[in-house]
Amino acid sequence: MKWIHGGITAPVGFKANGIFCGIKKSKKRDLALIASEKPCQAAGVFTTNKVQASCVVINKEHLKDGWAQAIIANSGNANCMTGESGFENSYTMAAAVARILKLRKKQVLVASTGVIGKPLPIKKIVNAVPELVKGLSRKGGEFAAAGILTTDRTIKQVSAEFLVGKRKVRVGAMAKGAGMIRPQMALAGLRPAKKMAGLRHATMLCFVTTDAVIAPSALRAALQKAADKSFNAITIDGDMSTNDMVLVLANGMAQNKRIVEKTKEFREFGHALETLFSQLAKQMIKDAEGATKFVEIAVKNAQSREDAKVVAMSVARSSLVKCALFGSDPNWGRVAAAAGTADAHVDPWKLQIYLGKELVLRNGGRVKKKAALLNRVFAQKNIRITVDLGVGKCSASAFTCDLSTNYVRINSAYRT
Amino acid sequence: MKWIHGGITAPVGFKANGIFCGIKKSKKRDLALIASEKPCQAAGVFTTNKVQASCVVINKEHLKDGWAQAIIANSGNANCMTGESGFENSYTMAAAVARILKLRKKQVLVASTGVIGKPLPIKKIVNAVPELVKGLSRKGGEFAAAGILTTDRTIKQVSAEFLVGKRKVRVGAMAKGAGMIRPQMALAGLRPAKKMAGLRHATMLCFVTTDAVIAPSALRAALQKAADKSFNAITIDGDMSTNDMVLVLANGMAQNKRIVEKTKEFREFGHALETLFSQLAKQMIKDAEGATKFVEIAVKNAQSREDAKVVAMSVARSSLVKCALFGSDPNWGRVAAAAGTADAHVDPWKLQIYLGKELVLRNGGRVKKKAALLNRVFAQKNIRITVDLGVGKCSASAFTCDLSTNYVRINSAYRT
Repeated sequence: MKWIHGGITAPVGFKANGIFCGIKKSKKRDLALIASEKPCQAAGVFTTNKVQASCVVINKEHLKDGWAQAIIANSGNANCMTGESGFENSYTMAAAVARILKLRKKQVLVASTGVIGKPLPIKKIVNAVPELVKGLSRKGGEFAAAGILTTDRTIKQVSAEFLVGKRKVRVGAMAKGAGMIRPQMALAGLRPAKKMAGLRHATMLCFVTTDAVIAPSALRAALQKAADKSFNAITIDGDMSTNDMVLVLANGMAQNKRIVEKTKEFREFGHALETLFSQLAKQMIKDAEGATKFVEIAVKNAQSREDAKVVAMSVARSSLVKCALFGSDPNWGRVAAAAGTADAHVDPWKLQIYLGKELVLRNGGRVKKKAALLNRVFAQKNIRITVDLGVGKCSASAFTCDLSTNYVRINSAYRT
Repeated sequence: MKWIHGGITAPVGFKANGIFCGIKKSKKRDLALIASEKPCQAAGVFTTNKVQASCVVINKEHLKDGWAQAIIANSGNANCMTGESGFENSYTMAAAVARILKLRKKQVLVASTGVIGKPLPIKKIVNAVPELVKGLSRKGGEFAAAGILTTDRTIKQVSAEFLVGKRKVRVGAMAKGAGMIRPQMALAGLRPAKKMAGLRHATMLCFVTTDAVIAPSALRAALQKAADKSFNAITIDGDMSTNDMVLVLANGMAQNKRIVEKTKEFREFGHALETLFSQLAKQMIKDAEGATKFVEIAVKNAQSREDAKVVAMSVARSSLVKCALFGSDPNWGRVAAAAGTADAHVDPWKLQIYLGKELVLRNGGRVKKKAALLNRVFAQKNIRITVDLGVGKCSASAFTCDLSTNYVRINSAYRT
């Protein structure tokens, strides 16, 4: 796998655009479009929140036959909890694109992100669609990536290529998300593991394009796995959004040998997807509202992978741990307390905690280290906290940021 | 039931004291003692964190026979994750009191609160015990209540009396807790309901005295029920402590007819306990680190009481909801998103949300209200948010506060 430029328009046959249509007060781009020359195998994973935006519900319906060709997305308004008319508006967005691109309505997927509960200004969107379509280009990836941002400070896009047989295959992706981030996305009809169901998050969107020829079941399997290891393993504030989704379009224009499950090519495709997603997930955390630090909570030697995940997320979600990170205060007792709260097998006498490479807890008590040394570890911008449960062989990581006074400031004045 | 003065020394036969022994840098009182003239029926509920302080483990052991006569508690150090020597130190605290009061060691219960992972300065405590015991008095309740505070700004104590037959019975209680608050306490050997197990909290202590004559099983049942409806229904930051506990001593000196379960007297005793606990729980929230608002999340018409509880706690724990409360921004979409995340039956089309008395969400969409009206509701110091799930008949409330820049400030510099 090799990193390449171009984001979602790096794969052959994809064009994109992003414009300002009138939703954002800042007058920044707030409408994005991605379109493929040819029909695509398509798949999506969606928020498992029981309150779901109409775009989530509609995409699940549109994806039932596994085909799509375009994605329209707006920022500045989540079109969620907007009643029956919210659904009509999402359909109208799709229809407006379908009409001009001469597609069937259900070949167009829809996404919205922003404030919940406010009616979508659908006329502004519909009026802007002709201009949006007209501007579609092979170089429009950055505009599209800008069109879906809310509190993000930077666009987030990545792309890569790799060989399938002798054919080059490309994958591109763009994403947004800086707050209300604790995705827990699953394929339509699936629910995440029970233990994770109590956790929560905020809106992230990710759109993926590829020119690979790939079987529908292989595409879905690769997508869910890659999402689990990346987006589903991060939390900014523990609040799950109503609009989280990752959509993939595969137009087959690379003309490679069809990728099917349980092959070397499938593993390579999955690896590429996971690498791209992890990169975007990390970009989200680095761009997180108010964040000053990037933090990995690595859990080792858990009894099960599920246990490792819930312990990692329990620590990553702790307000007190996150405040300590913000204040560069190596208060590992809060890490121990948060680990002990997880619904997992935790034995305090077997628990070991490392701040960076420094072992600080063993045999139920501290390992004395110089305060200056630990302070130095916690003053870094990239911090790894390792929680060794010592009761099994499974591991998992969660990625998060600190909780800063700025996060509170941003989110206490979000709408005003 | 009638409120009376005196706190934990209001019931007949109890004395208390609180002094500075040298743990707190602020030189405020950091050691407290409560003692009864006569042996007491005793019971306790404890944190369900898997990482538990030695005082929690030791009290469970000491309470096995259901008798105790004194409680010693220190603040400024949690004596948690302090290895084998931490356990020895907790025993030593109990033994120091037992020696002077001529009790058996296991008649003395122990509590600690403060920083995790730092060795307890046991010599300072042992050296101070003679002075602590010497100062025991009928008026020492306030000193004891001060001796257990950490980041609290005010002491928290209440007391009440009521009739059992023709005998007056008194109950007094004192508590501490302002951060790391999301108690989920259960009697030794019991675990909280599965669905709640994923949630988390910080140290709260509550010591209760009564002169009632009460059967051990009745005392335990009343304690668990009252704790569930009060302390177990609050959250400040969602972080569960390793040291949470409520201890009750009943010395029987009111000479009332023995209270047993399933009687009018039992219900009255339970009611008194619950009223006192609720009062203290609310005092904790009002005194919460950085808090500017007192918030009730009332969930109605849930399919089960468990569902009502998890939805209430999911909303009460949401960082985004709490930031909105801090900023007086009536962003009810965050309430809907947090409700939808709970592991409970939530139907977005049946969901109704009220801010104060104002209905803002119905039939999956907003009920348009004047912004000024909703802003006024959210600007209040006491706010009730009602989440009507519309799918059953059960209800429950959770109590919380807002998340302020000050909370982050306090907790990012806790040890420095």
